[in-house]
Amino acid sequence: MQQKSNYPSHVYLNGEIIPAGEATISVFDRGFLFGDGIYEVMAQIEGRFFYREAHMARLRRCLGEIDIDLDVGTLERDIPALLEASGLTGKDCLLYIQVTRGVAPRQHAYPTGAKPTTLMYAWAKALPDINRTLASAVTREDFRWERCDIKMTSLLGNVMANQYAVTQGCYETLFLRNGVFTEASHCNVFFVRGGVVYTHPADAYILDGITRQVVLECCRKLGIEYREEAVAATLPGVEEAFLTGTSTQVMAIADIDGKPVGNGQTGPVTHRLQEAFRELKSAQ
Amino acid sequence: MQQKSNYPSHVYLNGEIIPAGEATISVFDRGFLFGDGIYEVMAQIEGRFFYREAHMARLRRCLGEIDIDLDVGTLERDIPALLEASGLTGKDCLLYIQVTRGVAPRQHAYPTGAKPTTLMYAWAKALPDINRTLASAVTREDFRWERCDIKMTSLLGNVMANQYAVTQGCYETLFLRNGVFTEASHCNVFFVRGGVVYTHPADAYILDGITRQVVLECCRKLGIEYREEAVAATLPGVEEAFLTGTSTQVMAIADIDGKPVGNGQTGPVTHRLQEAFRELKSAQ
Repeated sequence: MQQKSNYPSHVYLNGEIIPAGEATISVFDRGFLFGDGIYEVMAQIEGRFFYREAHMARLRRCLGEIDIDLDVGTLERDIPALLEASGLTGKDCLLYIQVTRGVAPRQHAYPTGAKPTTLMYAWAKALPDINRTLASAVTREDFRWERCDIKMTSLLGNVMANQYAVTQGCYETLFLRNGVFTEASHCNVFFVRGGVVYTHPADAYILDGITRQVVLECCRKLGIEYREEAVAATLPGVEEAFLTGTSTQVMAIADIDGKPVGNGQTGPVTHRLQEAFRELKSAQ
Repeated sequence: MQQKSNYPSHVYLNGEIIPAGEATISVFDRGFLFGDGIYEVMAQIEGRFFYREAHMARLRRCLGEIDIDLDVGTLERDIPALLEASGLTGKDCLLYIQVTRGVAPRQHAYPTGAKPTTLMYAWAKALPDINRTLASAVTREDFRWERCDIKMTSLLGNVMANQYAVTQGCYETLFLRNGVFTEASHCNVFFVRGGVVYTHPADAYILDGITRQVVLECCRKLGIEYREEAVAATLPGVEEAFLTGTSTQVMAIADIDGKPVGNGQTGPVTHRLQEAFRELKSAQ
């Protein structure tokens, strides 16, 4: 179920655009020694980055949460040149952005005077109008930290959980904390019960995904009732479930731990949201 | 309270020993993108690495926990050459070792065929016979993940907690989980009550520090009763408290959240353990 990805042709690193194979950082970068960084991924669709402002606002907020001082506007201004060097101007692609605290002799506390390391790269990716893949998912206890609202690069917990899904032949691992679903290893998760859409509230236990926000916006537009409330591990009365994420978009979940959700197909509410999501993309 | 550290002169990187300023890795190293790595720190004292086997066994165990396949013996064999290049043969120093999953296009699940990245460097550091510094500590909720037994480089939680201590003018932050002390941001923590030594059991909520193990060995030698039991946040009846770690050794805690522990000096049990620890070092 894993998508193959390759290296991009070019990389933006600390203000310079260079061939990806030449893009290296010091082993003393705190991104390497401590996972001390923040990242973002956003999609260019028909020549515009989808919900760019929301992504940039989240990057700004997360950097603030860990006291990395950077004007993200400087990154935004350099995106066109990166796309051009990468042959992706106006083309559908994904853009990865990472900012770390910079290079300093290793000690845990924040160094003074370190200059943040900035990395960006883009690669061609045409997202389907509607993601018609049906995901299989497994569950496991959410053993990650309690600041999942920070989109950090200390991702080993997410990596281990995603690997668990892959070893089970699944697309995603859904996390359970205190008996309820929180999110997945790199997606948010939604459920439908009695026609009402449920997803975990945007507190410290989940990352408030931009696609999550867009789906809630779609619910409002369509007049679909939604509640930011967690759903119990036992899935009481759940008729549909779906994942959301920048590259995942809105993907129906066919089964969880081997048991079908509803009839194991894309449910009617999920389908309506997929259609509304597609319309938002083309209307942007 | 932070110790100043500088860059080492040389670095061992993937089998080569090079000047530290030339030691760079690809931005696609999973250590940089995901904090997907394991590390160790050990001290050379009077020409021998203190509890070297225990450190290497832990490195091996942690790599196994996250399925990084590496013969750590290859690293051990190259330590003498690194020390020589660094002018530290036989000298008191600290050695840092880091292994990441290697370089691969970014996707969460483990890549196949990536070659682990290996980094080591040493710097001069003469640890005092006895660490007579008195530590001030603050407390905060343990918001980290629930696999603290893995010595990983996804350390942002520890970094934030250590930074919190520094901003409070303290040496360490003591974590509280479910109302009891677990460990500190880069140390283990011990308490003494009624002459009995207490420390959190070595489960998934703490890293089982080598110095922690050595202190328990000292307790056995000295006939000091100890219990691997967590101590409540309210510190009922606690007379002494101390931190342990490779460079911290055994450091008395003078005060926690501004309130003195005992009389705010090194207590008698802590003192006996410091003496026993010193003897172990000189007897190795």
